[in-house]
Amino acid sequence: MKEHIIISGQDYINSLRGRKLNVYLMGEKIEEPVDHPMIRPSVNAMAKTYDLALESPELVMVPSQISNESVNRFLHIATSVDDVVQQNRLQRRLGQLTGTCFQRCVGMDALNALYSVTYEIDLQHHTSYHTRLIAFVKEMQQHNYVIGGAMTDVKGDRSKSPSEQPDPDMYLHVSKRTSEGVYVRGAKAHQTGCVNSHWLIVMPTLRLRPEEADYAIVGALPVDAEGITYVIGRQSCDTRCLEGDIEAGNAGFSGQEALIIFDDVFIPNELIFMDGEIEFTALLVERFTAYHRRSYVCKSGVGDVLIGAAATVAEYNGVESASHIRDKLVEMTHLNETIYATGIAASYQSHITASGAYLCDELLANVCKQQVTRITYEMARLAQDLAGGLLVTLPSGADYHHEEIGPLLDKYLKGREDVPTENRIRILRFIENLTLGRNAVGYLTESLHGAGSPQAQRIQIHRQMNLDFKQHLAKKLAGIKEE
Amino acid sequence: MKEHIIISGQDYINSLRGRKLNVYLMGEKIEEPVDHPMIRPSVNAMAKTYDLALESPELVMVPSQISNESVNRFLHIATSVDDVVQQNRLQRRLGQLTGTCFQRCVGMDALNALYSVTYEIDLQHHTSYHTRLIAFVKEMQQHNYVIGGAMTDVKGDRSKSPSEQPDPDMYLHVSKRTSEGVYVRGAKAHQTGCVNSHWLIVMPTLRLRPEEADYAIVGALPVDAEGITYVIGRQSCDTRCLEGDIEAGNAGFSGQEALIIFDDVFIPNELIFMDGEIEFTALLVERFTAYHRRSYVCKSGVGDVLIGAAATVAEYNGVESASHIRDKLVEMTHLNETIYATGIAASYQSHITASGAYLCDELLANVCKQQVTRITYEMARLAQDLAGGLLVTLPSGADYHHEEIGPLLDKYLKGREDVPTENRIRILRFIENLTLGRNAVGYLTESLHGAGSPQAQRIQIHRQMNLDFKQHLAKKLAGIKEE
Amino acid sequence: MKEHIIISGQDYINSLRGRKLNVYLMGEKIEEPVDHPMIRPSVNAMAKTYDLALESPELVMVPSQISNESVNRFLHIATSVDDVVQQNRLQRRLGQLTGTCFQRCVGMDALNALYSVTYEIDLQHHTSYHTRLIAFVKEMQQHNYVIGGAMTDVKGDRSKSPSEQPDPDMYLHVSKRTSEGVYVRGAKAHQTGCVNSHWLIVMPTLRLRPEEADYAIVGALPVDAEGITYVIGRQSCDTRCLEGDIEAGNAGFSGQEALIIFDDVFIPNELIFMDGEIEFTALLVERFTAYHRRSYVCKSGVGDVLIGAAATVAEYNGVESASHIRDKLVEMTHLNETIYATGIAASYQSHITASGAYLCDELLANVCKQQVTRITYEMARLAQDLAGGLLVTLPSGADYHHEEIGPLLDKYLKGREDVPTENRIRILRFIENLTLGRNAVGYLTESLHGAGSPQAQRIQIHRQMNLDFKQHLAKKLAGIKEE
Amino acid sequence: MKEHIIISGQDYINSLRGRKLNVYLMGEKIEEPVDHPMIRPSVNAMAKTYDLALESPELVMVPSQISNESVNRFLHIATSVDDVVQQNRLQRRLGQLTGTCFQRCVGMDALNALYSVTYEIDLQHHTSYHTRLIAFVKEMQQHNYVIGGAMTDVKGDRSKSPSEQPDPDMYLHVSKRTSEGVYVRGAKAHQTGCVNSHWLIVMPTLRLRPEEADYAIVGALPVDAEGITYVIGRQSCDTRCLEGDIEAGNAGFSGQEALIIFDDVFIPNELIFMDGEIEFTALLVERFTAYHRRSYVCKSGVGDVLIGAAATVAEYNGVESASHIRDKLVEMTHLNETIYATGIAASYQSHITASGAYLCDELLANVCKQQVTRITYEMARLAQDLAGGLLVTLPSGADYHHEEIGPLLDKYLKGREDVPTENRIRILRFIENLTLGRNAVGYLTESLHGAGSPQAQRIQIHRQMNLDFKQHLAKKLAGIKEE
Repeated sequence: MKEHIIISGQDYINSLRGRKLNVYLMGEKIEEPVDHPMIRPSVNAMAKTYDLALESPELVMVPSQISNESVNRFLHIATSVDDVVQQNRLQRRLGQLTGTCFQRCVGMDALNALYSVTYEIDLQHHTSYHTRLIAFVKEMQQHNYVIGGAMTDVKGDRSKSPSEQPDPDMYLHVSKRTSEGVYVRGAKAHQTGCVNSHWLIVMPTLRLRPEEADYAIVGALPVDAEGITYVIGRQSCDTRCLEGDIEAGNAGFSGQEALIIFDDVFIPNELIFMDGEIEFTALLVERFTAYHRRSYVCKSGVGDVLIGAAATVAEYNGVESASHIRDKLVEMTHLNETIYATGIAASYQSHITASGAYLCDELLANVCKQQVTRITYEMARLAQDLAGGLLVTLPSGADYHHEEIGPLLDKYLKGREDVPTENRIRILRFIENLTLGRNAVGYLTESLHGAGSPQAQRIQIHRQMNLDFKQHLAKKLAGIKEE
Repeated sequence: MKEHIIISGQDYINSLRGRKLNVYLMGEKIEEPVDHPMIRPSVNAMAKTYDLALESPELVMVPSQISNESVNRFLHIATSVDDVVQQNRLQRRLGQLTGTCFQRCVGMDALNALYSVTYEIDLQHHTSYHTRLIAFVKEMQQHNYVIGGAMTDVKGDRSKSPSEQPDPDMYLHVSKRTSEGVYVRGAKAHQTGCVNSHWLIVMPTLRLRPEEADYAIVGALPVDAEGITYVIGRQSCDTRCLEGDIEAGNAGFSGQEALIIFDDVFIPNELIFMDGEIEFTALLVERFTAYHRRSYVCKSGVGDVLIGAAATVAEYNGVESASHIRDKLVEMTHLNETIYATGIAASYQSHITASGAYLCDELLANVCKQQVTRITYEMARLAQDLAGGLLVTLPSGADYHHEEIGPLLDKYLKGREDVPTENRIRILRFIENLTLGRNAVGYLTESLHGAGSPQAQRIQIHRQMNLDFKQHLAKKLAGIKEE
Repeated sequence: MKEHIIISGQDYINSLRGRKLNVYLMGEKIEEPVDHPMIRPSVNAMAKTYDLALESPELVMVPSQISNESVNRFLHIATSVDDVVQQNRLQRRLGQLTGTCFQRCVGMDALNALYSVTYEIDLQHHTSYHTRLIAFVKEMQQHNYVIGGAMTDVKGDRSKSPSEQPDPDMYLHVSKRTSEGVYVRGAKAHQTGCVNSHWLIVMPTLRLRPEEADYAIVGALPVDAEGITYVIGRQSCDTRCLEGDIEAGNAGFSGQEALIIFDDVFIPNELIFMDGEIEFTALLVERFTAYHRRSYVCKSGVGDVLIGAAATVAEYNGVESASHIRDKLVEMTHLNETIYATGIAASYQSHITASGAYLCDELLANVCKQQVTRITYEMARLAQDLAGGLLVTLPSGADYHHEEIGPLLDKYLKGREDVPTENRIRILRFIENLTLGRNAVGYLTESLHGAGSPQAQRIQIHRQMNLDFKQHLAKKLAGIKEE
Repeated sequence: MKEHIIISGQDYINSLRGRKLNVYLMGEKIEEPVDHPMIRPSVNAMAKTYDLALESPELVMVPSQISNESVNRFLHIATSVDDVVQQNRLQRRLGQLTGTCFQRCVGMDALNALYSVTYEIDLQHHTSYHTRLIAFVKEMQQHNYVIGGAMTDVKGDRSKSPSEQPDPDMYLHVSKRTSEGVYVRGAKAHQTGCVNSHWLIVMPTLRLRPEEADYAIVGALPVDAEGITYVIGRQSCDTRCLEGDIEAGNAGFSGQEALIIFDDVFIPNELIFMDGEIEFTALLVERFTAYHRRSYVCKSGVGDVLIGAAATVAEYNGVESASHIRDKLVEMTHLNETIYATGIAASYQSHITASGAYLCDELLANVCKQQVTRITYEMARLAQDLAGGLLVTLPSGADYHHEEIGPLLDKYLKGREDVPTENRIRILRFIENLTLGRNAVGYLTESLHGAGSPQAQRIQIHRQMNLDFKQHLAKKLAGIKEE
């Protein structure tokens, strides 16, 4: 890891080089992930979080109360309503610029959740997690590092709790303790952008029982810590990027998900932020997911791109003024703005925690995410409707560039006379990318399961729906008197 | 009209008495509307806007920059983001307390829209509408009056514009001019709470053509001005209130809608706020509907009551812990909070106008209203699902109190042992009231058509969806280069 | 009860007179229900099942294998696929002609379910229920009587089974036995058209336990049997019919639901069709609800009328050619035909039972009903969208006929020039009737809860979804080998 | 083409070999398509239509009135209601067995549509198309050939009709005439299974104008006719099959779509079935799409597999008994059976045409297809919900088989203890295949656009919704009298 501060996207890319990571993809160990053509688009997306800070510092940079310097919002502790709201605006913008998951939110949301939770643990247990965390955040800010938040365990048999699993490693846990720190063992699944990060924070994924104290571990580790293995997941059409930029659809950007396996990895004491305080695990999960569910506002940025692509293909087909076409674009916009609005409302309704950090409205954050799990799929369906069947029957770019077949395709795949056939092909491949291909992974399935599957939101909504108050209102109006 | 300031709900009710209004209901002229049993519940709902100011002044009262006094928000010009947001919080609370339409938002939204539009007309035309409006608002604040905003014309054949109608009165227009003012003629439909108001502001309902200048009239009139006739509309189950409070469902509160007929009614010059500036009519309509569409956040307050009622009936039936029951309550909450969140986001994203007044985000305001047109119906369906079939087969309260039949009904209509049968009856009648009965008018159909029908929102969303920007984003990511 | 056969609707109406029924409505005992203005529209709807037999015998009449005569399908045992399908066609037609629930399906579906179930009970228990039933059916056919099927008990605390209820009468049960027969006690709720019937068949409403044998009673009783009391339920806007035919919306026709209380009512042995065979109660419920859930195809007939009304109001408003209006009519048609198609498919996929009667496809019947619970509400919402806000702000017919106000309303409520204002009023009242008023009870809430609430269908779908087979298909294609 | 009859799937595969087709895929000319690993799964799917005839002749084989022999239903002219219904049953079964598009329906639907249309053309024009068609069908039956129906032109600028296009070849047309026949020029897009067929039938794709007579050409051509070029379209994840059977998800079966370019291809007179009778083109399109839209019942067979896969993954995760999991499987079943039921109803309501062939109900066929365009997407979303996030983060099969990483994956990707990790991987890849991957093309996007895009169905529903009749019903009930 480089010692000095990372400023540009290029700095960031350079900072990733030369680490001896254990990274596997498609059965091969990858020497230099940053230069691997299937991985690079995900690095580019993360790099945008740096470059945008240079282009639009007003959107990205914020004075930190910790380092007393201007830092990237992704490393900032939100200490005002406006801070929380600005995260959403930044997320939408990055969604617009990349058309994919730019992977840096998890760390931001993890830091913010830990900030208030460690404060409250310390209050009760006279521990010093909060001070440690502040020191850690300060260091991260000084280098402008990327932090990955590692919460989701692999879970094994989901009908069993961590301690009931036949294999104790199905949830990450402390496997050994020394005076200097702890060793952790287990695996974290669906880890967004982890290979592109500098640091990881491991956190428990659910409420724990008294006998499961070893599973209540939160700590930071450098991505290249000894004993960590990364296995990058397959994505729909992930090898398309090897076939040229037309085929890829969105050649520049993609998301990244990996499985991280921890084979007794060491965490020193000063980087431990929770260790055994099981009664705080549910609180941590709730706060992290509250922040993170509302972070799915990024999908409204991706949705902007999809709307733009759908409008473009309609125009290229010569049907942009048909009433049903316009109506579908209106519906997409209505749905997309519903994601944005529910997120913004959750952020705007933030309240201060004991630590001074602001926490978004938990009910509305869950409502936002629940909308995301439905709306993105309907958006994709509508975009495919507007795209037409050619979306899935389009010959390959290699055919389009073929000496004999190429000119025939140029002739027969033409839409409006004034639009080059290649442009029509490109916009179709782009919609394919977002609705069936590589970035459909982030736009659709991750929208469904990231930050918790739909049922997890429903459980939180259930907890926060305040039925007693509402029943009281109804009974009063209905003239019901109860002793 | 009483000279002094109206403070309590009771003051307000008294202030309505003794006016010689021409009010018709069910074929009869009503001498004193405020004492008519079918009208009174709608007066009560409006009265809550006064009583709540006494109970929760922090929610209702706000210092006015116009009168330099603390005024009711319904008469306040919003001069900050917080002002716009607080309107929504007030609206949700009043929805919770009344379970119906409390009718005072139209005037608030009309004043706010006129505040910025008159400012801009004056800038361009060197007129003095804005000064007049400020004087009018000041007077309203000093008395704490209720203002009804009268926008929707009866429209006749909707395929024709005002000047094309066979009958020129299908849209309200200036019928005569004198040096003191103008006379207006026409009718305004669906006028919420007008008979319960002290003043009316008439406004044009759509974009006008050059030859339609006489239709571009905005002015204020006292409700008891000479030449006005009110015909109160029927509502589903509106006569139930004559049968006792159980039958009524929500005996205390209801909405009110009337047709107002203007038979050459005089408006003096100092109360005219637009006269012939046709190029500003569309702007006025857009701003008014922007404020007003987001005002439908009140339905999330009514939704709270409906959720409470549905949870209560489930409990009375003994099924409150069944997973599908809980899930339906979660879904209702999710939907209801989506209304709230989209409204709050629209208000929070307010921006300042040239006049200094704050205007909500127009795109999100339309998204909010569009959600309302769908969500309330799904909420009603879910509430009926939870209520069970007895909702529509329940014998009358008179049977329940009948000497012979009553005890049998008490026995056979009992749900859980510890719940009096009457309570079960009451909550069912309450749900009937909100989903089929009198307050279904406001909760459902008015949610559909009030502040513009669904298609009107779609037209606005279409105007504001900024396709060029989105197409540019998509083309860039797809690698499309255009000259 | 008259001795001879009932042929015309008028015959039927006459046949109902002079019975000394204990009928209560709105706190009063009704001497002659058939002549009560609030009840008569429901009698008219039932009468249509007779008149249509005269107008379209090919649709209604069918040769019976029991009486060897041509009988009304509502009294026919289906012995072919075509028989089952023709029930649906008849139901849709009657929905079209009445715009409401014509109430005669329950009896038809009860007879058909009992036909096969009694056969199977007899096979196992050597009882003679089937022979008794055939004799009963023959008698019904010879007089062309109306039979009401009484299944739904009042249920009390729904978390408790019949024998666990604090009050044993929460489910109908045998209260006394003699050598001639049994006495039954309890109450049946939501009884469609019972006061308009000649006979009732009581049936248990759920799977019973061994200790609940007295609840496993099926038997026929004349509607005027001693000890029966009927309490007719209130319906939204049910008193509108007292205000004239415009106000009523659909002045001619309505549904009817009542609570039937059985105070030790006698059933002679020869009219008992099940007594204690608890292992057949679930089967009976399943078969009855299979037939009856598919009978909700009638709602597609009512839907036809609602589509017609919505198209009419659009035309009267002058907007029938707007693309969004057309699209909403298309959507309504699409949804309405989905109801019809799922019903027809369920009927067409009928299979023969051991008794020779044909039983519809149970899975598809449940799918049909589940669609009905959703589609009718969306249809109503769309119809209200097309109707415009006047639907719920329309002044009363009395105002319209008022000497002074009437002409003003005639002027201002006019839509297209060539359409009389009264016609516009009538079609709006009609849509109000179907979506908020009296017939909304049948079109909406009964569509939700009749023949079992939505969750009941989901339970049946769960039972019949044949997961093992489907998992086998998937595993084979996925290359999964299991021992 | 082999001379003798094709019986087994293997016969069929052999029959495709040795044809000198011009087939391109990914920039390369494919010598022997049948042996190309990316094409073969689509050949396998078609082959199932032969093998199933051997396994379940009662489902597939039917006596033909033309050849007087038992023929495969895909080559049979439906001359009874049962014939039309049996097509649907066969289609569902093949969907269950392949989990994809088996490609043989287009030809079946084309033959059936042409059978009645040619009969009616001959009646009016005294042509002999019908006789020619019968001879052609007979020959097809005798060899048991596969016919592809080629309707969809590439269309160019969709705002212009064929004769208005800048390039006349945007719609296939007669380019030259001789006494022996005609030459056609143009291209057909989205041609399902064409490379796997023996014959093609070209047909016009829309209503034509008088000046467009050369576009009104219907004729049959052998797949290897001179002048034809095939360019096979890319499909999401189509190269996965090159990575092993786990990665492929459904290694055995896939669909196939190609662009067919006709460079002055000859059709002899005896194989021409329409030539210039423009007034019959709309009729042909309507009949073909009626049959074909209802043919989408096949998707309920694929849906069965998806339900099975979703249930399997839930079981492997140990959550199969959670209420929300069960409820989602119920919802999937409900939706899937709605597709089936609407299709069956359309087929069951078939009516005879003048030619003696039976034609399905056109309104219901469009309703069926419209449901398919929505339901499949919701099914996919629910399946992904049940699958969990691992669906899109799963490492590759190569990693799973890697010496070092493999055992770790085996450990950490395990769900329930008794289920091999490989099985869990396989079912996840299978769901990926159907919802994002290769067979998502057929299950989702083809369900949207095949047989006409959603708006095409809405136009047909609009034409057939019989508003006059429905308005008449409504007016009568509302008491509206019109002259």
